[in-house]
Amino acid sequence: MNRESYRQRTALDWTVGHAAEAQAEPETFVPATVPGAVQLDWAKAQGWPDYWLGQEPRRYGWMEDEYWTYRAPLDPPAVGEGQRLVLVIGGVDYEFDVLLNGEALCSQEGMFRPVELDLTGRARQGDELRIRVHPAPKREGAKLGRWQADSCCKPAVSYGWDWHPRLVPLGIWQEAYWEVRPDPHLADLEVRYELSDDLDRAELEIHWALNRRERAVLAWELHDPDGQGVLSGEQTLDGRSGSIAASLHAPRLWWPNEQGPQDLYTLHARLLDAKGQALDAASHRVGFRRVRLVMNEGAWKRSAQMPPVTRAFAPMTLEINGRAIFAKGTNWVNPEIFPGTISDKTYQPLLQLAREAHFNLLRCWGGAIVNKESFFDLCDEMGLMVWQEFPLSCNSYPDDAHYLGILDAESRSIIRRGRRHASVAIWCGGNELFNAWSGMTDQSLPLRLLNRNCYDLDPRTPFLATSPLYGVGHGDYRFRRGDDGKEVYEIFGQSRWIAYTEFGCPGPSPADYIRTFIPAEELWPPREGTSWEAHHAFKAWAPADSWLFLSTLEHYFGPSDDLETLCARGQWLQCEGYRFIYEEARRQKMHCSMALNWCYNEPWPTAANNSLVNWPAKARPAYEAVKDACRLVLASAAVTKFSWRPGESFATQLWMLNDAPTAQPGGTVRAVLELAGQRREVGQWRFDALPANTNAAGPEVRFELPADAADEAFTLHLEVSGRPECNSAYRLRMRA
Amino acid sequence: MNRESYRQRTALDWTVGHAAEAQAEPETFVPATVPGAVQLDWAKAQGWPDYWLGQEPRRYGWMEDEYWTYRAPLDPPAVGEGQRLVLVIGGVDYEFDVLLNGEALCSQEGMFRPVELDLTGRARQGDELRIRVHPAPKREGAKLGRWQADSCCKPAVSYGWDWHPRLVPLGIWQEAYWEVRPDPHLADLEVRYELSDDLDRAELEIHWALNRRERAVLAWELHDPDGQGVLSGEQTLDGRSGSIAASLHAPRLWWPNEQGPQDLYTLHARLLDAKGQALDAASHRVGFRRVRLVMNEGAWKRSAQMPPVTRAFAPMTLEINGRAIFAKGTNWVNPEIFPGTISDKTYQPLLQLAREAHFNLLRCWGGAIVNKESFFDLCDEMGLMVWQEFPLSCNSYPDDAHYLGILDAESRSIIRRGRRHASVAIWCGGNELFNAWSGMTDQSLPLRLLNRNCYDLDPRTPFLATSPLYGVGHGDYRFRRGDDGKEVYEIFGQSRWIAYTEFGCPGPSPADYIRTFIPAEELWPPREGTSWEAHHAFKAWAPADSWLFLSTLEHYFGPSDDLETLCARGQWLQCEGYRFIYEEARRQKMHCSMALNWCYNEPWPTAANNSLVNWPAKARPAYEAVKDACRLVLASAAVTKFSWRPGESFATQLWMLNDAPTAQPGGTVRAVLELAGQRREVGQWRFDALPANTNAAGPEVRFELPADAADEAFTLHLEVSGRPECNSAYRLRMRA
Repeated sequence: MNRESYRQRTALDWTVGHAAEAQAEPETFVPATVPGAVQLDWAKAQGWPDYWLGQEPRRYGWMEDEYWTYRAPLDPPAVGEGQRLVLVIGGVDYEFDVLLNGEALCSQEGMFRPVELDLTGRARQGDELRIRVHPAPKREGAKLGRWQADSCCKPAVSYGWDWHPRLVPLGIWQEAYWEVRPDPHLADLEVRYELSDDLDRAELEIHWALNRRERAVLAWELHDPDGQGVLSGEQTLDGRSGSIAASLHAPRLWWPNEQGPQDLYTLHARLLDAKGQALDAASHRVGFRRVRLVMNEGAWKRSAQMPPVTRAFAPMTLEINGRAIFAKGTNWVNPEIFPGTISDKTYQPLLQLAREAHFNLLRCWGGAIVNKESFFDLCDEMGLMVWQEFPLSCNSYPDDAHYLGILDAESRSIIRRGRRHASVAIWCGGNELFNAWSGMTDQSLPLRLLNRNCYDLDPRTPFLATSPLYGVGHGDYRFRRGDDGKEVYEIFGQSRWIAYTEFGCPGPSPADYIRTFIPAEELWPPREGTSWEAHHAFKAWAPADSWLFLSTLEHYFGPSDDLETLCARGQWLQCEGYRFIYEEARRQKMHCSMALNWCYNEPWPTAANNSLVNWPAKARPAYEAVKDACRLVLASAAVTKFSWRPGESFATQLWMLNDAPTAQPGGTVRAVLELAGQRREVGQWRFDALPANTNAAGPEVRFELPADAADEAFTLHLEVSGRPECNSAYRLRMRA
Repeated sequence: MNRESYRQRTALDWTVGHAAEAQAEPETFVPATVPGAVQLDWAKAQGWPDYWLGQEPRRYGWMEDEYWTYRAPLDPPAVGEGQRLVLVIGGVDYEFDVLLNGEALCSQEGMFRPVELDLTGRARQGDELRIRVHPAPKREGAKLGRWQADSCCKPAVSYGWDWHPRLVPLGIWQEAYWEVRPDPHLADLEVRYELSDDLDRAELEIHWALNRRERAVLAWELHDPDGQGVLSGEQTLDGRSGSIAASLHAPRLWWPNEQGPQDLYTLHARLLDAKGQALDAASHRVGFRRVRLVMNEGAWKRSAQMPPVTRAFAPMTLEINGRAIFAKGTNWVNPEIFPGTISDKTYQPLLQLAREAHFNLLRCWGGAIVNKESFFDLCDEMGLMVWQEFPLSCNSYPDDAHYLGILDAESRSIIRRGRRHASVAIWCGGNELFNAWSGMTDQSLPLRLLNRNCYDLDPRTPFLATSPLYGVGHGDYRFRRGDDGKEVYEIFGQSRWIAYTEFGCPGPSPADYIRTFIPAEELWPPREGTSWEAHHAFKAWAPADSWLFLSTLEHYFGPSDDLETLCARGQWLQCEGYRFIYEEARRQKMHCSMALNWCYNEPWPTAANNSLVNWPAKARPAYEAVKDACRLVLASAAVTKFSWRPGESFATQLWMLNDAPTAQPGGTVRAVLELAGQRREVGQWRFDALPANTNAAGPEVRFELPADAADEAFTLHLEVSGRPECNSAYRLRMRA
């Protein structure tokens, strides 16, 4: 009884062309892929090299300011008695008009609202449909860069970022097709619920809507995660929309990755006519979970002094189904420059890697798009919670009526879509809006509007105005700071933020990967002004040698002789830096309750970046280090610095970290020094059983490094008796 | 053409009685004053002493838990053709049922929503109307005190506060009457507006509503502050409600006290029938102003570092009509324990004193009631901006559906009423909600709901979730802290908060005032457990001797021999403490942009308190000191301590403070020491002209105090050449 058997989809045949004026006819039309982007269609027709090679993005600048017109000659499917012909346009980036034989059917600003047009009896063979896409939005007078996007709902990242070239996509980025639908049909079906305080009961509301007022019957059945029917009913529908209440006892709960199963129920519904004949069908998955953001440990105490100077920190501990958990994860960015090319096949390997890295939270940053449906479906299935930001980032979005109107409509569409997913755990206004470079405040109407819309449409999901909030840290983004020489060990070892919602540790990509997109003649040595710079190795961010940080590499290792050596050294720092930060954040649990590095993935190949996974889905060495640091249970050493000298005294505190929802047996940790192929035990700690979700701090281990050690690496191993899966290793620098 | 000529009001004749159960009949009924309180009616019938004497409030405890029934035999006014008979009940505190001949007409929880019942043809002579008031709301299981009020919209203060006895009012607290109205009539009339960015145009929307759908005409005229008509129109009304657009060029702006005129326009409207005959009339004042909360000076710079650890301070500078102003004011509390006794005559002298004290902002604190209409009318006229909190204070108000439902309805009523007033400059969720003793957070649904409602109904007025926010200080509330011995001079001299939205400096009330409510036999010496304690001289707050602080008085002066001496000494400290804090906050302008002491007034006579004005409207000596410190322009000395020894070296920095919107001429400040009747010039400063709204920091003045000075006071005078109205004086302690 699936929906497809009641509805037939038919593709359209698109071409696309451009002109400088809205009313001007494009000189030529070239074949268009939908969903896609006008840039890709045009580049393909011209036979250009791939946009991600070398400095190719430079070719595309002029396209931003053109009007692009998609054209499709119509040959609409036949529509019988009791059927409707609907044109569905899932999303167009960014402002557009839909025209039939030159007459405007609708105009819209905003890429996150689908358009559905009932053209029954109106569209005929030989007609022509056009979708005219306006030039990329740019605020008049804004300087080149993200500021141009500060008055629209188009993600700012494509206007240029420190890991994204200037390349502003335009075009039909979601599916667009004819759909022949039964009449009447289900225009909407959604299960909303509220859990009882003890989580033992879910009060359901099955919301339905028809395309028109009609007396029909909705037959519905709720299946549990094993496919067994657990509730069902038949309801005569009166009116055009309404809801049906039902009560589910002892619902099986949805849990984040490694905290429990990702149980998902499914509602199946059929629309029946007066004779009991099925007209239409729909289904809807639902995961029952309660998400709260609660105060961090110690945060109230800190604010308990009288008189009450200032306020307490923001609540940043995720409590899922009554259990406060440590959120381990990352900042997810757009996985492609052109969102039209994204499909479930883009998401699947990236999310699978995230799940395997023991992550449970992805912050979907406000500079990028809100992802397609399959992203949320996969996150539901994989237990990856989503912190979903609206498309605001690092800008001062205005209080004006036009912008607020678009944001209102776009955000309502985004919330209505996201609230259907168990994985969507946090709504957030956008990125770094309460910092000087953005200049927004608690009074900014766009943020008050978003809070309002989230409250109206999804009140039980937490809403953050932005990140960072009071008590939360973004950064640092360097293994070693140039100004004060502090390393990640010191920076994060001394930080006491309640959540690290961004931090970075940059590194070059693997050498063989870099060879695939930097022309051979530019490969060595890396230089500014070349493809290295275009791919973010230089001048990406305030420190001029970001993200390659040659100065840092030379500080630790001296000059590198070749690309392979350079990359291996940089990746070594990235691995140990990230390993330390994730473990340190976990050692600060639950004063600290979140560690999300910047960033997970990337939209095109970078020569150097903070990412863990190269485009499109290649794990970097740092990915493996982070995966190690995020295991549910592991031995951990609070390393204090990276580079050591022969004969130096080494001291580190031992820890057992336990994020598992179950207790762990006691045991023994052996600390073993591996140097020049020799292994030596340097300490031991017998630790007691660990309660569920609780760390144990152990003793400090102290030993002397050999005075005669040569210039090389050494490794501190932590070996847990009988539990090799909990072993850890820290590879550090010996410099004679 | 005033409203009264179309509508006739008739009073009802009330009695009131009580019973333990809702359904039980009261044994006796006593005459009731409406508006009023059941406690006052009962006390009067019993011949009890005034509730504000001695320890009288103790008598009233049992009344909280009774059902109180108001009864009125009906003799409704005659209603002719084309008229409606409406029962208007302005507000009942707190939960109640309205019954006609024993049949429930309506039930409501919440005191801030009026009830209007159209009883045309239904209420007859000989009928009986009852209003049954339920027991005071108390959360089951809550301990005695404000916590009992943490799940309702009844102001928490009456459950006991450090300046308010436990005395929980109940009853009809707003006007209740019959009104014979024309049919159709104007059910609502409101002018909303939006100002252009340059403030040169107001786009008006005149919202109207009828009691029923009827084709009629609205004739309206807008009068300027001088009573001259500036816009008018006639509109045929279609439907039951709607709005009429109009545009006003160059509106005269409303300004806060001393920043400009309080210009108020008036809309006069008449409802006409088809023949042009007037049916009804209404008028509505409107003050055109733009209010914003913008970032304080330096606050962005402070948050400009990369990486962006945490967030910037909250924006706390009031910008009125484009001008950032320093907000000088106070925390307004309920001026009576029983709000039913409050009228414009209660407000008028208190607000007049506030205006004369150069105040421009009153924080109406969330522990107390939202004031009656005449309060806001007077604030509009006097230029006193209102920071209006919703009834939440120092509690953790829950996320549950019942409470949210009441809060939703009550807050909408409050916002709809407040947004009509130019004076309402800030909406705020409530008091100290983001501190440990309250335990609410940014995620608390009541605060998200209030943001939503304010955004929906009054988006252009700033909304604060609570006070204090990040960067804002509440307290201290002591002249000298017991724990570290720091005085206000050091505490506030070293503080760098962006706004001081509460701070206190306690003192005893004048001796002759104290004699009016503390029985003679308890008067001397002040002791715990007596009426002194009942009137907040002891155990009011955490330090056990608050608010009298005998230990502080003895620290500076040794024991006092009599009541007059004690009170004079305490008032001296209060005067100088408040003088210093207000001036210091102003010296920190615009890093700091607000100074609001805790508190302005009081609901009954206190023996010791932080207030400036004793109940009902008697200025304390501290009022005069604050009035001095808040003058638009004055000379100011940054005094460093209160008590000095003979021969000690005295140093103080001189300032000229200018909050005026106009530049001030330069001049000379002479510093003069007055001691033992002798005056000696100790310093001089020639200052340049002061730009509008800008202070000038002068030199430090240093001199030796005479080595032979005796135990007494000395005064440092600052005398401004040719401008005696800018002179200041600091009376300090000399202790040999």
